[in-house]
Amino acid sequence: MANNKKNDAICAMEDDFAQWYTDVCRKAELMDYSGVKGFIIYRPYSYAMWEAIQQYMDKRFKETGHENVYMPMLIPQSLLQKESDHVEGFAPECAIVTKGGLDNLEENLIIRPTSETLFCEHYAKVVNSYRDLPKLYNQWCSVVRWEKTTRPFLRGSEFLWQEGHTVHASEEEARAETLQMLEIYEETAKNLLAIPMVTGRKTEREKFAGAEITYTIEALMHDGKALQSGTSHYFGQGFAKAFDMKFLSKENKLEYVYQTSWGVSTRLLGAIIMVHGDNNGLVLPPRVAPIQVMIIPIQQQKDGVLDKAYELEQRLKAAGIKVKVDAGDKSPGWKFSEAEMRGIPLRLEIGPKDIANDACVIAKRNDGNKDTYSLDENLETTVKELLDTIHEEMYQKALKHRNENIRKANNYDEFKNIIETKGGYVKMMWCGDEACEVKIKEDTSATSRCIKEDEEPFGDVCPICGKPAKKVVYFAKAY
Amino acid sequence: MANNKKNDAICAMEDDFAQWYTDVCRKAELMDYSGVKGFIIYRPYSYAMWEAIQQYMDKRFKETGHENVYMPMLIPQSLLQKESDHVEGFAPECAIVTKGGLDNLEENLIIRPTSETLFCEHYAKVVNSYRDLPKLYNQWCSVVRWEKTTRPFLRGSEFLWQEGHTVHASEEEARAETLQMLEIYEETAKNLLAIPMVTGRKTEREKFAGAEITYTIEALMHDGKALQSGTSHYFGQGFAKAFDMKFLSKENKLEYVYQTSWGVSTRLLGAIIMVHGDNNGLVLPPRVAPIQVMIIPIQQQKDGVLDKAYELEQRLKAAGIKVKVDAGDKSPGWKFSEAEMRGIPLRLEIGPKDIANDACVIAKRNDGNKDTYSLDENLETTVKELLDTIHEEMYQKALKHRNENIRKANNYDEFKNIIETKGGYVKMMWCGDEACEVKIKEDTSATSRCIKEDEEPFGDVCPICGKPAKKVVYFAKAY
Repeated sequence: MANNKKNDAICAMEDDFAQWYTDVCRKAELMDYSGVKGFIIYRPYSYAMWEAIQQYMDKRFKETGHENVYMPMLIPQSLLQKESDHVEGFAPECAIVTKGGLDNLEENLIIRPTSETLFCEHYAKVVNSYRDLPKLYNQWCSVVRWEKTTRPFLRGSEFLWQEGHTVHASEEEARAETLQMLEIYEETAKNLLAIPMVTGRKTEREKFAGAEITYTIEALMHDGKALQSGTSHYFGQGFAKAFDMKFLSKENKLEYVYQTSWGVSTRLLGAIIMVHGDNNGLVLPPRVAPIQVMIIPIQQQKDGVLDKAYELEQRLKAAGIKVKVDAGDKSPGWKFSEAEMRGIPLRLEIGPKDIANDACVIAKRNDGNKDTYSLDENLETTVKELLDTIHEEMYQKALKHRNENIRKANNYDEFKNIIETKGGYVKMMWCGDEACEVKIKEDTSATSRCIKEDEEPFGDVCPICGKPAKKVVYFAKAY
Repeated sequence: MANNKKNDAICAMEDDFAQWYTDVCRKAELMDYSGVKGFIIYRPYSYAMWEAIQQYMDKRFKETGHENVYMPMLIPQSLLQKESDHVEGFAPECAIVTKGGLDNLEENLIIRPTSETLFCEHYAKVVNSYRDLPKLYNQWCSVVRWEKTTRPFLRGSEFLWQEGHTVHASEEEARAETLQMLEIYEETAKNLLAIPMVTGRKTEREKFAGAEITYTIEALMHDGKALQSGTSHYFGQGFAKAFDMKFLSKENKLEYVYQTSWGVSTRLLGAIIMVHGDNNGLVLPPRVAPIQVMIIPIQQQKDGVLDKAYELEQRLKAAGIKVKVDAGDKSPGWKFSEAEMRGIPLRLEIGPKDIANDACVIAKRNDGNKDTYSLDENLETTVKELLDTIHEEMYQKALKHRNENIRKANNYDEFKNIIETKGGYVKMMWCGDEACEVKIKEDTSATSRCIKEDEEPFGDVCPICGKPAKKVVYFAKAY
């Protein structure tokens, strides 16, 4: 999966994957550390990717009838405690404001770790009748969860995300919403990020604090670990009862609403890095790349070279392509490495010889292939087609890697062997008991990633406890 | 300025302007209160306006070379204290996190009241050479400033804003940036929000904590009070010295950078309400309106009426107009009031008679004028022209109101008389001494809004102290 060439600025992923990851985050200027552990700075290059993700998803959310809102950053401690499972899940991770202005506060305030409780309180006020339903709200914001071990984008004490919160008049509608959003997440990962996801339902142990059902999208990293990349929850009427969210139905009866929530975060940036990157740095899927084409002038001091470079920039820009000329006073070789490190999908080289031939050289970042292309009126189309080809090639490569790394275990020894020697997903039958999940985690550090309800059982006993098993579960070591 | 008709759901602005404002905020479903004082909920209707403002300004920022980033929400207390003027300005307003997870923190963390210190720390790290300059960063986020007296959108303990932070190699360039951003703010207010601004420089007393110069845009509300609506600061090298932000110049000398910052916030939503609203509710400038045209079917139970309404919706939508059909089971009269309360620029009525005539009635929210229009192929153009006309009419009306409310005072009695009986801006000569500003504030509660450096002096002594005066200053009571 790694390129043969090797950029000395970063560690080889085969030597130390964690170090490779951190090196790429720093050297590609994606982030910087701040003075507070777990709170990172999103530099322009990573933030532009997040903006591309926001733009794409926000459009999909609005097409499906959702509206954006903004809820307060601070939650009174008593409000967070209203739903018992929920508070139990989040209490250990809270950042607590105890002073405001020059005074000690009467009640502690929690920086939102998630906003279910705020949405519930609001919905309880504004929903009265079936006419007010459904309410399909979403918000883009940052949340704070105090973490002991942190890594850029993957696990931070603060991260950026969207959180959708909806309430419905019927169970059926709420369940359909939960699945619809899961589908939008999976589709976004595929069509924007070139990442194939494994989707399914979380076990009771792994589901969200307060949810009846949690669905997940899981991506597979280069190192064989899984990354939970987005979740969609069906709450039933649990929060509705705790927060007294009732409405008058068409039949004139007071009923509790049915509720969902769903979110993806800047973790997706971590997924992009670890699914597509190589030993020369980032490899960006074209549709999320802040710069899709870097034009690098060769012998730029010669007459007409820079002019031609800027002329091509204008042409590609006019065609809607994100393009930039690297006209800095560094050597072309240096610029090549820099463009590689930053994962820019296409490098366009233009020098005196190319100009004489009315041509340019275009190199693809994902596989290093390069070719000569005419500068005629087809150039714009060619570049667009190359970008689409790269997207498709990157998706297929990731899909192949994922498929080759889903293995079946018929017994526990097989399971342990695969987890230890190969990594990736291991699917196994499971009885449904938490005790068996816990044992697996203790023995191997692998966790259940999801229950695949659409997969045919390939056995009828749980290899851990010997009791009847009906469910196919995917396990993996995970971030 | 107020309409003759009167919606009973809200207080008349002549009776109690503050109550009218709060009523509009609530009844137009712009916001709701949360359980924490000063932290409001931005409901879909106000948030959609903020999104329109973001979209417009973000485009302008990017066209002028700025990039978005995201800095941490929490600032170590010691970092906030590094620049002495700055910390003095913000210390009384800080929300302080003292616990994280289950532990007391070693150092208190402040929820950002503004992010100068974070940008400075980052720039000090990443700027080394003139080649790294300028850095033109912006971020969209929320900030927290603990306020004693709060009002929706105007003054909150949390608000949404953008904060631009730039560093430059030369004083000239940084000064030009400060003025460029002021111009973008003024232009946005005019072309997007239909609000004419008074622009100028803040006095020493009123400038931003840590700035050398603060420029401001000030809007005039219906009640004759001014609203500071955006500011652009030139910092010189003050923060640069406190944070050791140095770079190697072209001449190979270590120099301090020159810095700016600039911001507008959700206060702009308050300005929209108080500049344009009337006694029937909101009056929205078309370019920021989440719904530009509300189609209201008349006798909607009759065959073909709803079909025609949806057909027109599709036509207008296809032409890029934000349009909605109100097909709820309420009377047309009720729907008319609701559309008025929400300030929807155009109301399109369509009933059986209209359909028979292949026509519709369109009413303008800003002046109540209505007319009959053919449903022929010109409808889309007609609607767009009407929207542009409304924008222009609203701007001209606000401009007239503002111009009529800028008055000149040649002595202090005149000044006090105007402030008390007429409100609005009063311009007066000023010596430059803070003592005179303080006296004016104590006597009249009016504050200096800005120094108009482009205005011809109309006297040569300060009416307060009798010392020489060279500057024309605009004073007003303000929010």
